[in-house]
Amino acid sequence: MRDHADTDEIQIRALLESWADAVRRHDLPAILAHHERDMLMFDLVPPLQSQGIEAYEQSWGLLFRYHKPGTAFGFRELAITTGVDAAFAAAIMWCGPDSSVSAADTDGFLFRLTVGLRKVGGNCRITHQHHSVPT
Amino acid sequence: MRDHADTDEIQIRALLESWADAVRRHDLPAILAHHERDMLMFDLVPPLQSQGIEAYEQSWGLLFRYHKPGTAFGFRELAITTGVDAAFAAAIMWCGPDSSVSAADTDGFLFRLTVGLRKVGGNCRITHQHHSVPT
Repeated sequence: MRDHADTDEIQIRALLESWADAVRRHDLPAILAHHERDMLMFDLVPPLQSQGIEAYEQSWGLLFRYHKPGTAFGFRELAITTGVDAAFAAAIMWCGPDSSVSAADTDGFLFRLTVGLRKVGGNCRITHQHHSVPT
Repeated sequence: MRDHADTDEIQIRALLESWADAVRRHDLPAILAHHERDMLMFDLVPPLQSQGIEAYEQSWGLLFRYHKPGTAFGFRELAITTGVDAAFAAAIMWCGPDSSVSAADTDGFLFRLTVGLRKVGGNCRITHQHHSVPT
């Protein structure tokens, strides 16, 4: 069970790092990879919720007007809880025009991210994302 | 597997309904029940994150100044993903001074909630909560 959990955690960490890398490159097909078609998105900005991969794809338009390719979008902290067939991850993210991803940056912002995953055919697939900042 | 998942979903739904009921009654011990001591909270309001059950307990002070006992705090929509030993739930919540929990209410607000759970000793325990509104 422990080995299994470790393997899943490594797979999920790699999946999420690859997703963040795709965001940095504004590579939409790579951003959408590993997501289920009926995924549920709670985004930083309205609407309250979006259902489905098409709505998720469209949600990136606003960020890409702010974020320039190659600048920072990544994990400051990442805690992954793995199960045999379901998992979730909670993260503190940094998004900003400066690529240094340092705590002193002022031209960017921190946000919270929770990701829900299911094991489908032996692979971890994202079924839920929740992005937010405190109000 | 399917029976197991159904049983877990029933247990988690009951746990979350009992938590919301405890919030409506401002019953802090009942709110804290079923939470792990090292839980990670992403709240509606700052700070960005809070670690541990004591910080989680303190986070309710602000809501209780707005929310009056017996008024609305509950699930409008709830989707639960269960695994053998981990699960997560994504919900649209209504919080407001009016107890009718109707879509026409204006004296309250909708927010998003994601909950992460782990199976500990056969019981589902909350290890993560993420509350937010879009900004």
